[in-house]
Amino acid sequence: MRNVKCIVAYDGSAYCGYQRQNGQPTVQEALEWAVERIFGAKTTVHASGRTDSGVHACGQVIHFMVKDGVPEDRIAAALNSVLPADIVVLEARTVHDSFHARISAVQKTYEYYMLNRTTSCPFRRLYALHIPAKLDSDAMHTAALQLLGTHDFSSFQAAGSSVVHPKRTVTRSQVCRQDDMVIYTVTADGFLYNMVRIIVGTLIEVGRGKTEPDEMKKILQARCRAKAGSTAPPQGLFLKEVEYKDGLRLT
Amino acid sequence: MRNVKCIVAYDGSAYCGYQRQNGQPTVQEALEWAVERIFGAKTTVHASGRTDSGVHACGQVIHFMVKDGVPEDRIAAALNSVLPADIVVLEARTVHDSFHARISAVQKTYEYYMLNRTTSCPFRRLYALHIPAKLDSDAMHTAALQLLGTHDFSSFQAAGSSVVHPKRTVTRSQVCRQDDMVIYTVTADGFLYNMVRIIVGTLIEVGRGKTEPDEMKKILQARCRAKAGSTAPPQGLFLKEVEYKDGLRLT
Repeated sequence: MRNVKCIVAYDGSAYCGYQRQNGQPTVQEALEWAVERIFGAKTTVHASGRTDSGVHACGQVIHFMVKDGVPEDRIAAALNSVLPADIVVLEARTVHDSFHARISAVQKTYEYYMLNRTTSCPFRRLYALHIPAKLDSDAMHTAALQLLGTHDFSSFQAAGSSVVHPKRTVTRSQVCRQDDMVIYTVTADGFLYNMVRIIVGTLIEVGRGKTEPDEMKKILQARCRAKAGSTAPPQGLFLKEVEYKDGLRLT
Repeated sequence: MRNVKCIVAYDGSAYCGYQRQNGQPTVQEALEWAVERIFGAKTTVHASGRTDSGVHACGQVIHFMVKDGVPEDRIAAALNSVLPADIVVLEARTVHDSFHARISAVQKTYEYYMLNRTTSCPFRRLYALHIPAKLDSDAMHTAALQLLGTHDFSSFQAAGSSVVHPKRTVTRSQVCRQDDMVIYTVTADGFLYNMVRIIVGTLIEVGRGKTEPDEMKKILQARCRAKAGSTAPPQGLFLKEVEYKDGLRLT
């Protein structure tokens, strides 16, 4: 047996998220079906974490245990030959048996895309949130910086979800504008449920002048979901990269 | 009555081309339905030209005659409020009654996108042709330049189509590479049926080393469809811009 680690990109538009659910199309089900076809045995495909319905990934990391057979440098092409076109294995390699896509992960990076112009764009409708009103991306960046560090992020956790330890360490939190696209990038050692989308919903209020950038710190300190903005929709969100210790980073 | 000219972008993936066909979803039908809803009367929407099934547009130009009513600066937003998300009116304005989107056009520009890397990309699968084998974009550019000028383009016309005057004047024909994307751009006073896609099919053979760049001139001079390459698939093709005389250019 060997442990195979892959970097996977997927368009989440057609899926009810990563995690297998009976009767619903999920990324996990599609990947497990492909692994079974190529390696000939039912196998659980573990990911670095779930992504929600409609959320995309450029750099999701998965692993699965399979028998030897397909040479390492052919695994990606073999899986891609049976996967649907909206899921692509970018890279595959054999790793130590102790590697676990979720447990071994030390940091993850997400990006959220906001198309900020009067008219929407048919080619980006599935990959960005369209915001016609002008966003002040500098103010959003000032607010985003206040999330850096180790904090209790309960204010940015979906109401009703219960995490015993809501502390997370954010090492990157920035907003930049590239032409008509405003992009929020966040790196942390872990994320609470809907955390990125709630942060983005709050940053949009800052960008539209409804919330002062300095309010961000107060919202964080309140540890109260009701203080933050609404949950931004899924289509702008991309799981960009997962980092591992011991040189297991693959990007 | 007034004549309204619009610049329209659409994702052609879900449509059987621009032109209305009974029982099939078309861009024209969607636009005419939207114009009827906003202006209250059945109206023909004329385009600069048809696009085929699966072909996209960033800068299609249309016109239609309607009664006064909606202020000029509200027309685009009004139409977008009832159009499906894959069709967007970027700009709308009232023009002289003599303006006709097709007849008044003097030049059109198309772009064709080729994703040139080993693995495909789920986010570009509908907007580029994936070519895993390395393309020599310099050789393709050398070949593309040979199409400049006024020529009989019969070699690059779909077999079976009959155009009395197959001469066209190409004023721009170039290939460039941007990271893993190879882009062909062509501007001409008009295009024969499938002309861009057959040119691209031929350029791909040049890029893969199967045809010498200098062969392009011979293929052109042969005036024979069989000498050219295959017809590239529709999803990489975008109608980028339509130009008009008398300052009617809108981009």
